[in-house]
Amino acid sequence: MQTLRSHNCSELNTTHLNQNVTLMGWVHSKRDLGGLIFIDVRDHYGITQVVIHPHMPFFAEASTVRQESVIQILGKVVKREGAINAKLSTGEIEVNASAFHIESPSEILPFPVGHNPKQESEDTRLTYRFLDLRTEKMHRNILFRCNVIRYIREKMISLGFNEFTTPILTSSSPEGARDFLVPSRLHPGHFYALPQAPQQFKQLLMCSGFDKYFQIAPCFRDEDPRADRAPGEFYQLDVEMSFVTQDDVFNVIENLMIGLFENKQFSERNILPLNHYDAKYVKNNRKFPCIPWHEAMDKYGIDKPDLRFSLEMQNVEETLAHTQFAVFKSVLEKKGILRAIVIPQAAAQSRKFFDEADAYAKECGLGGLPWLAVKDGEWKGSIAKQLSDSEKKGLGNQLKLEPHDAVVFIVGSEKLKTQVAGGKVRNYFAEKLNLKNNDSWAFAWIVDFPMYEFNEEEQKIDFSHNPFSMPQGGMESLKNKNPLDILAHQYDLVCNGTELSSGAIRNHRRDIMKKAFEIAGYSESVVEAKFGALWNAFAFGAPPHGGIAPGIDRMVMLLLNEPNIREVIAFPLNQKAMDLLMKAPSNVSERQLKEIHIQTTKI
Amino acid sequence: MQTLRSHNCSELNTTHLNQNVTLMGWVHSKRDLGGLIFIDVRDHYGITQVVIHPHMPFFAEASTVRQESVIQILGKVVKREGAINAKLSTGEIEVNASAFHIESPSEILPFPVGHNPKQESEDTRLTYRFLDLRTEKMHRNILFRCNVIRYIREKMISLGFNEFTTPILTSSSPEGARDFLVPSRLHPGHFYALPQAPQQFKQLLMCSGFDKYFQIAPCFRDEDPRADRAPGEFYQLDVEMSFVTQDDVFNVIENLMIGLFENKQFSERNILPLNHYDAKYVKNNRKFPCIPWHEAMDKYGIDKPDLRFSLEMQNVEETLAHTQFAVFKSVLEKKGILRAIVIPQAAAQSRKFFDEADAYAKECGLGGLPWLAVKDGEWKGSIAKQLSDSEKKGLGNQLKLEPHDAVVFIVGSEKLKTQVAGGKVRNYFAEKLNLKNNDSWAFAWIVDFPMYEFNEEEQKIDFSHNPFSMPQGGMESLKNKNPLDILAHQYDLVCNGTELSSGAIRNHRRDIMKKAFEIAGYSESVVEAKFGALWNAFAFGAPPHGGIAPGIDRMVMLLLNEPNIREVIAFPLNQKAMDLLMKAPSNVSERQLKEIHIQTTKI
Repeated sequence: MQTLRSHNCSELNTTHLNQNVTLMGWVHSKRDLGGLIFIDVRDHYGITQVVIHPHMPFFAEASTVRQESVIQILGKVVKREGAINAKLSTGEIEVNASAFHIESPSEILPFPVGHNPKQESEDTRLTYRFLDLRTEKMHRNILFRCNVIRYIREKMISLGFNEFTTPILTSSSPEGARDFLVPSRLHPGHFYALPQAPQQFKQLLMCSGFDKYFQIAPCFRDEDPRADRAPGEFYQLDVEMSFVTQDDVFNVIENLMIGLFENKQFSERNILPLNHYDAKYVKNNRKFPCIPWHEAMDKYGIDKPDLRFSLEMQNVEETLAHTQFAVFKSVLEKKGILRAIVIPQAAAQSRKFFDEADAYAKECGLGGLPWLAVKDGEWKGSIAKQLSDSEKKGLGNQLKLEPHDAVVFIVGSEKLKTQVAGGKVRNYFAEKLNLKNNDSWAFAWIVDFPMYEFNEEEQKIDFSHNPFSMPQGGMESLKNKNPLDILAHQYDLVCNGTELSSGAIRNHRRDIMKKAFEIAGYSESVVEAKFGALWNAFAFGAPPHGGIAPGIDRMVMLLLNEPNIREVIAFPLNQKAMDLLMKAPSNVSERQLKEIHIQTTKI
Repeated sequence: MQTLRSHNCSELNTTHLNQNVTLMGWVHSKRDLGGLIFIDVRDHYGITQVVIHPHMPFFAEASTVRQESVIQILGKVVKREGAINAKLSTGEIEVNASAFHIESPSEILPFPVGHNPKQESEDTRLTYRFLDLRTEKMHRNILFRCNVIRYIREKMISLGFNEFTTPILTSSSPEGARDFLVPSRLHPGHFYALPQAPQQFKQLLMCSGFDKYFQIAPCFRDEDPRADRAPGEFYQLDVEMSFVTQDDVFNVIENLMIGLFENKQFSERNILPLNHYDAKYVKNNRKFPCIPWHEAMDKYGIDKPDLRFSLEMQNVEETLAHTQFAVFKSVLEKKGILRAIVIPQAAAQSRKFFDEADAYAKECGLGGLPWLAVKDGEWKGSIAKQLSDSEKKGLGNQLKLEPHDAVVFIVGSEKLKTQVAGGKVRNYFAEKLNLKNNDSWAFAWIVDFPMYEFNEEEQKIDFSHNPFSMPQGGMESLKNKNPLDILAHQYDLVCNGTELSSGAIRNHRRDIMKKAFEIAGYSESVVEAKFGALWNAFAFGAPPHGGIAPGIDRMVMLLLNEPNIREVIAFPLNQKAMDLLMKAPSNVSERQLKEIHIQTTKI
């Protein structure tokens, strides 16, 4: 049997001394030292040093071979003459070349491959992605991604799940983001759509009697690109289970996330223990805290709080209920909100520190950022004189202030806007004070999302998130509660301030679905027209079911601490949704357009 | 923690006697026996029998519950009163219901689910696919598919491969089948295309320094549907390797196929041993025979021969070189071909048997099917009198005829047409005589495909198969050989007459590629324009590489002995490329079309 290499470039060591071997790989680097040429030959697995002696007939050819050319070497394994390289598995040996062949020469490189080409523009890197992927960092990132996906698959299978494939050519869905459309050749004027997610299919699989579904699923959304979102396509771990409650779903995902994020292959960090969190969020059997959506908004001003640090917004409305400080007083009279964030040990910070924070708060839409601090037993700060001694003492007690702590106040008349701005201010201080601990993963479930919200624009009740989630309390709640008080069996998984996934226990009952849509002003016929497949399936015995769909790219980014999603995808579209390597999207022929019964509009 | 069921429907047995349990599932069947109601409750895992006694308050509700409704049962596990059902893991027990709840009622079913709904039209089954998938056969088929894919993944990983994801929104490829196009919103008048296969990407990954790639890859071809081909999308096990020869690729795939097709989980059949085949096709280290393409065409008249049976076409031109039989003589004079197929022990067959075969041969484009047989020591058959005694004796010797064997003759002046027709006749006799052994898998490699063929229409040399395969002998062959004599490093894997895959060692050298295209009349600029990404990559050090891509759906069909591809896909398009469940393809709004800068043409 013919082979091109006897060993790969990471295999040889002192046990192979005096063996004749054949290696193939790229010219990683070349050094001319005292008449000898040293070539580091690189492949997927590693690097082996090759020595070429001046008396060899191929010496001249070897001395001119360009970096990144592919070469084949025959030679004998010998002990290194020079210093041992302890970083390489092959660092104690070298191969003394007896034959040398340039299999595929390289032209002059557009950028160096041996080093991390940080200085290159992203578009240059993407145009020559086949070179960019040879760099150590990108090679490692892409393999890391392969291994994360492999880990997830094996874990899900070990938990009793089956991986199904669902259609990619499907129908346009009337909700959510924009669809990519695919004109049909066989059905003129009709279009397939690429799935934004296999949502309906996974629910249909549950209605088909399967029990535990997962899929590493490609999803397609025609959204405008941004750094943490791939334009066009992305992958999610799509999960659905039958005959389950929210806890059953949480069990699976906690098991998976702990396995993944505490796996030393993928991360040196640890998941923060439950005693890191307020005891009221720690539930029996749960491995991650469960924070109701309303409380997350109130404490953190966001539904994907970063819980590595505290800096919670605390409600001080009662303590300051009778304040004469005009700003606070008028807000409280207008039923606005008043919150305090304790900034530990910040009393010694400069005036500039608080002025800059005040400027940032204004950028976020707050009127400013009043502050207090206890320094050397004295109250100082922008509103030290505006609050009475008993109010300050009250705050000290409520907030359990320590000497040298500072307090900033988040105050505004519009509740949601003020909460969100407060959340940004909270994050601002965490950045400033370096509280984002890069040794930890802070996972949490955000639960009890509201089913409905008031749509100010249209002045009507609307679904807040997913119309297909089961309302908590089922039909009883829909019939008897104020819609804005109804919570949904809907949840998010967050980690270090990133939303990893949304999920829900689905509404599988036609009667409850009909009522739920009625409250939002939709008739049965709308549901039927828009979601006919599920609506039909629910008429023939549907199991209670629920699921979740963590983003794969997002998890890989977190684990690698990469802010740019294109660093974890082998062949991504660029920020203008173009593939610079394959030249997509591109012009197509008139014949092709004619076949699929479309024409482009005048531009 | 709240749960909806304590056990699934296959778990309970006599070790659970007297335990109180909660079950959920579908009403699989219901029997009213002597005042008791027996319900078989079914879920993904199995069936458990539930008994409802007449004094229970829910007796009336239970007696009217419809099949396929989803119910929840509380009750105590007891020994079966009636006969034990040895077929069920739960067959020794039943659950004595103490509470009964209809979670989701079913309407009247469009077809029965408990039995195999063979009588239904496929379109009805696809419209109610969520019911169809509950049938025992479909449920088993889809899980089987999940398990085959899982097996393949695990095997490939164990062989050192990494699974990569490659883009689905990519560029239109100018060769091969028709592309599905996706209009770009951000780039008016431009289109993405769905990949017909990740061919270029997998080669680019090799040029990026990765070594062993695989992917369970969705592929898209806008072809007209047929029974064994899914319209629209299908999955293939896409494989590519660097620094390999053809043998390296064969090693991997043989290892995988033997593991899969001899796995008792998937197949009771055995792979035919190498001594089943002509010794000249058995190569050192190979587990499957290797048959050169030219010989496959000459012996079997097809490049995907069914090798479970013999019935080879044998060249009898020399033996009959001087025949005076006019039909043979004139064909031999015209440099046509003359082949014989031995039909073992067919001498006793009726005249009708040979007349029908003759009619079939004419349908296939042959002039007829002359035949001979040795019966009771006498020559008989349609040309017994036309051949001389020495010719008949010569045939007897050459073909090693046994008493009672018959011989049919494939004769025609156009070589390829006659070979192909002979292949059909060969297959005809195998069917008639029941020689397709359903206990066996006959795997073979078809190797040494011709690089070029003569395009009669355009009267020019053209690539026969894949222009990107490496010609055997490389540049030397291209320069010195008659193009029609040049073979390619290209191969097919066949099993029981089905082509499972094509593959090749790729042409990774710009100089050889330029020359290869030149021979077929294409300039360098054509290659560059059409396959720019690969052409560029090959300029910067490309490794020798090759691969293969067996069809997943095809393998599952073979293993399940299913002739219809839609029986192995959960949600397939129908034969008109429509998804009847999701109603795809469908109309979309004018707004959607406007956003992506297209309009439909008048129809």
